[in-house]
Amino acid sequence: MIIVMKPNVNNQDINKVITLVEEHGLKTHLSTGDQITIIGVVGDKSKLLKCNIELLDGVEKIVPVTETYKLANKKFNMTSSVIKVRDVEIGNNNFVIMAGPCAIENEKQIIETAHAIKKSGASILRGGAYKPRTSPYSFQGLEEEGLKYMSKAREETGLPIVCEVTSLKSVETAYKYVDMFQIGARNMQNFYLLKEIGKTNTPVLLKRGLSATIDEWLNAAEYIMSEGNSNVVLCERGIRTFETATRNTLDISAIPIIKQKSHLPIIVDPSHATGKRAYVNPLSKASVAVGADGIMVEVHPNPSVALSDGPQSLPPKEFDALCNELRPFAKLVGKIL
Amino acid sequence: MIIVMKPNVNNQDINKVITLVEEHGLKTHLSTGDQITIIGVVGDKSKLLKCNIELLDGVEKIVPVTETYKLANKKFNMTSSVIKVRDVEIGNNNFVIMAGPCAIENEKQIIETAHAIKKSGASILRGGAYKPRTSPYSFQGLEEEGLKYMSKAREETGLPIVCEVTSLKSVETAYKYVDMFQIGARNMQNFYLLKEIGKTNTPVLLKRGLSATIDEWLNAAEYIMSEGNSNVVLCERGIRTFETATRNTLDISAIPIIKQKSHLPIIVDPSHATGKRAYVNPLSKASVAVGADGIMVEVHPNPSVALSDGPQSLPPKEFDALCNELRPFAKLVGKIL
Amino acid sequence: MIIVMKPNVNNQDINKVITLVEEHGLKTHLSTGDQITIIGVVGDKSKLLKCNIELLDGVEKIVPVTETYKLANKKFNMTSSVIKVRDVEIGNNNFVIMAGPCAIENEKQIIETAHAIKKSGASILRGGAYKPRTSPYSFQGLEEEGLKYMSKAREETGLPIVCEVTSLKSVETAYKYVDMFQIGARNMQNFYLLKEIGKTNTPVLLKRGLSATIDEWLNAAEYIMSEGNSNVVLCERGIRTFETATRNTLDISAIPIIKQKSHLPIIVDPSHATGKRAYVNPLSKASVAVGADGIMVEVHPNPSVALSDGPQSLPPKEFDALCNELRPFAKLVGKIL
Amino acid sequence: MIIVMKPNVNNQDINKVITLVEEHGLKTHLSTGDQITIIGVVGDKSKLLKCNIELLDGVEKIVPVTETYKLANKKFNMTSSVIKVRDVEIGNNNFVIMAGPCAIENEKQIIETAHAIKKSGASILRGGAYKPRTSPYSFQGLEEEGLKYMSKAREETGLPIVCEVTSLKSVETAYKYVDMFQIGARNMQNFYLLKEIGKTNTPVLLKRGLSATIDEWLNAAEYIMSEGNSNVVLCERGIRTFETATRNTLDISAIPIIKQKSHLPIIVDPSHATGKRAYVNPLSKASVAVGADGIMVEVHPNPSVALSDGPQSLPPKEFDALCNELRPFAKLVGKIL
Repeated sequence: MIIVMKPNVNNQDINKVITLVEEHGLKTHLSTGDQITIIGVVGDKSKLLKCNIELLDGVEKIVPVTETYKLANKKFNMTSSVIKVRDVEIGNNNFVIMAGPCAIENEKQIIETAHAIKKSGASILRGGAYKPRTSPYSFQGLEEEGLKYMSKAREETGLPIVCEVTSLKSVETAYKYVDMFQIGARNMQNFYLLKEIGKTNTPVLLKRGLSATIDEWLNAAEYIMSEGNSNVVLCERGIRTFETATRNTLDISAIPIIKQKSHLPIIVDPSHATGKRAYVNPLSKASVAVGADGIMVEVHPNPSVALSDGPQSLPPKEFDALCNELRPFAKLVGKIL
Repeated sequence: MIIVMKPNVNNQDINKVITLVEEHGLKTHLSTGDQITIIGVVGDKSKLLKCNIELLDGVEKIVPVTETYKLANKKFNMTSSVIKVRDVEIGNNNFVIMAGPCAIENEKQIIETAHAIKKSGASILRGGAYKPRTSPYSFQGLEEEGLKYMSKAREETGLPIVCEVTSLKSVETAYKYVDMFQIGARNMQNFYLLKEIGKTNTPVLLKRGLSATIDEWLNAAEYIMSEGNSNVVLCERGIRTFETATRNTLDISAIPIIKQKSHLPIIVDPSHATGKRAYVNPLSKASVAVGADGIMVEVHPNPSVALSDGPQSLPPKEFDALCNELRPFAKLVGKIL
Repeated sequence: MIIVMKPNVNNQDINKVITLVEEHGLKTHLSTGDQITIIGVVGDKSKLLKCNIELLDGVEKIVPVTETYKLANKKFNMTSSVIKVRDVEIGNNNFVIMAGPCAIENEKQIIETAHAIKKSGASILRGGAYKPRTSPYSFQGLEEEGLKYMSKAREETGLPIVCEVTSLKSVETAYKYVDMFQIGARNMQNFYLLKEIGKTNTPVLLKRGLSATIDEWLNAAEYIMSEGNSNVVLCERGIRTFETATRNTLDISAIPIIKQKSHLPIIVDPSHATGKRAYVNPLSKASVAVGADGIMVEVHPNPSVALSDGPQSLPPKEFDALCNELRPFAKLVGKIL
Repeated sequence: MIIVMKPNVNNQDINKVITLVEEHGLKTHLSTGDQITIIGVVGDKSKLLKCNIELLDGVEKIVPVTETYKLANKKFNMTSSVIKVRDVEIGNNNFVIMAGPCAIENEKQIIETAHAIKKSGASILRGGAYKPRTSPYSFQGLEEEGLKYMSKAREETGLPIVCEVTSLKSVETAYKYVDMFQIGARNMQNFYLLKEIGKTNTPVLLKRGLSATIDEWLNAAEYIMSEGNSNVVLCERGIRTFETATRNTLDISAIPIIKQKSHLPIIVDPSHATGKRAYVNPLSKASVAVGADGIMVEVHPNPSVALSDGPQSLPPKEFDALCNELRPFAKLVGKIL
């Protein structure tokens, strides 16, 4: 941590800051220039939590130099994590495809989809039972009934299942059914929910918030991990920008950045990132090429009657073609698909 | 709703769309130009929810023309709402000041603050008992203990109290203590939580999400109102942009926009919008001038030792000066402060 | 400037950085902690321009602590600047209103407008002769012919005139006619143009770029000032965000920030910031209240037939009402209008 | 174009709008619903330029349905364009690599770089002679001297050269030397400059503005093309968002969007998009995979002493490795590299 002092600061104010910091057991290094004076602070910053150094006389600003997340930080855990969802390993040399409908609509739809995606090469089935929708008048999901259909699809196909949870109540229900919890973009900073699933040992797919920085995202992972659950997989799904040609802007650079800053696996959701079916194929290829550990794709047996996000869903036939087209890309980057 | 067809669409595709829409009981109007064909749709759009018209052959895009929120919409409720928090009326000709510390730290702190802000002219006491913090290692709030201190402060001063809730559990606890629930920016689209407080009749202060459009914000209000609780006050607290000189960018235009689109009262939180104490005073004046129904300001008896957001908190003396400076502005816009 | 080293940096790499910096005549201060090592650098950073320290082994990142602009910086010029446009002083205790049509259409239009705005209280006439339009098929301005009409309007009313310039050629032409150059948002980083007008001594109204940070904006001012022309007035006109209810998002906080960082006067353009006539009035009041030195408002004798930006232009009658409503606000903040 | 009327509009206002539109030679279609009335407008919208329909009584808003750009629009030019820069064809099945230093520093540097990149597989040499820099105190480029070194490098290697131009003066000078003009992000809406280069027949590399929508970008291309020069290649180089881990956010979706909306070729600049050398390799692979027609990469013989953008430049050895790694990706997407 660096404390930048105001241009014409006097010695008394400088000494006050130094004394305060050192009283809390940290070390300081003073650098005095013609135009600027800075105080380097070394030691455990959390001891200064109550000090509000920014408010002391003569202080211009505080410049942090270390990240606040520890467990998710590559600096402290150099080995890349591999997260197991039943028998499926995310991370390492695997390229994992999760697929399924945005919303579970009925038993037939989900089972039919599960068979189709398995045949094409997906290894995890996704499906929404609790749908966070912008308008209260949109379809909100089948809840527990949907989870039962999902379990049945798992029974029939052997595919592990991932479902979004949106509240403690849904966690308690879903816990009995699902193999992986999904935290949606809108709940990425629902810290209460993060802590609750942190107390389970069910793997978690943590989507990036609509306007979350990568730093905040890794801090959200830290919330889950600091409660004991380190089975976290990150999912980039587009951020909000001024561009309106796509629903969101896929931040493809997030993948190499996460690979540099964290040991956690990261996958991409091209369906939500763009909101348009036509872009799912090229963005999936880009995701493989850039080094992602997998993708999550919306597939619906009949997109034109889907209850949610039909326009971005692929029909099984297009999904099958996508999987076939991705395989050589995966091979090129040394991954197994 | 308008359906824009692709440039070289054939009649068969056009007829298919028209038939589908009309089968669901809505009316269509076809406009055929040299370059473009559009189909106007009139009637209850919710009947088309399952149709995914965007996916039909020949359809280029759907252009919505009406808002999805009804209860929060000024078009259907022309009279400006006045929300009562105990004896305090928000809306109408009142300019309401809510003030208090970001986080409740102890009994003395909150009671001392309550007396100070009341004397200066605030009419509602704010204080955080459940703190959503970016890092799990930051101070997370005193929870129920904090709410008890708040109640005591109300007993002593008569000021109604507003506290943030972040989960069903905190709603159940806070329900017994607080006069107004606050939904923070990070939970604006925690739809589960919105529905739960929608089932109470406690007034709600709904902050705008960090990257929420005004439309999404009014839809979040609709979630609360559609469950029966229409006592919603909106709070603009800054949005996320590329500018880093302030923590967020206060969207001051949101106030006249909300006044045009909705009948709900709206206040401004200049403390969180900027994150810097020095800007609270000028932005508060701007808020009065632009037509807001109030402000929410962070006040701490000793900001330099605050456990949360000290740098943006005003000490009581500065807050007192602020209230005095705001009075003539309120008078100018015909408001009582 | 602070150099943050990588976690496991060795002494050799540290010494290499220190040696390089000191060889260029600057001083260093080393702080070594358990987790992090930082090197504070004191002295004239421009001497390190060619060093690319970020690329040396062991370096994690560079954290700048001082601004790159000097002439526009309040730290080095404590007295607030007052810019004279003929007899009109911008800055100090004046609240200056610039008004006129977005585009000059004909002699009658501009002279009629000039008389009207003068009567209402404006002190500078604005009008566009060179219009930067998104589409090449939109009206592009009357160029020199327009400037002649503007001069005539000045002759008749005595109001100084401000016009946008978009190229060296337009600067050369406009130089003979106008009292103040305007640099539009799209040219804020047209550094060539900035340098050219920096060689004149005509006052400049420098609009903020659509996605410019405040730091970049002040650096753009520095481009003009470093060529010798220090007559710069800044104009906040909204930045680009995800919100679509207004054309841009007025960053009202920019006013107190500029007042803190620079000695240059700053005005607000509520017409372009919102793109909607209905919001001009409330945002103008907010601008006075927040401490701006003036506003620039689009006025058109008959907005419904304006060739450019009609929807955001005020008719003279509404403009007159606005001026009258602003006067008591100006008085409250101690300004003369 | 669709005109949406206000909820309680009366017939007189509706008729006024219809009359006005039809008087200008366009056709209207009226759709009247319970809640909303819309008027579809068919015909040449440019005839309505002077009407400002938004300001008529009863009008709520205008919803455009067609794009304003024609020459750059795929709807009107279905065949993908191939742009020739000397013997190099951009578009079609070619994957073109442009490489070179951000700034030309001296003859040796540029010639050495030219030989190196040619050997690795690049087919166009880039180099900056006019550098738009945020601060006036940064290195601004060698200007004509630099262009001479570039020509010499072309002589020696046969590689065509591309250089940024920033003013009419630099166009006039560069015209004699370069094979392709580059318009940088900061000048994307310098419409005067666009028109000037539109009058030449030199190919143009048009970078996307820092906060330009795809629509505005294609309109900028239209400015060049409408003057007669249709040799335009687009270059995605990152947009400005709230994320600070990269200098900009590469909008990878822009490539498939442009491919859908326009016939112009599009390349990616991963160096400027991220500002960090480590991300250039993965983002280049993603660019090939997503369907771009090429990339532009910064290469410097010794990045640690580069005068501009050293941290994002690759040394020749890393660039050579990159080219080798890209080849199989190009092959996979059916492109020649």
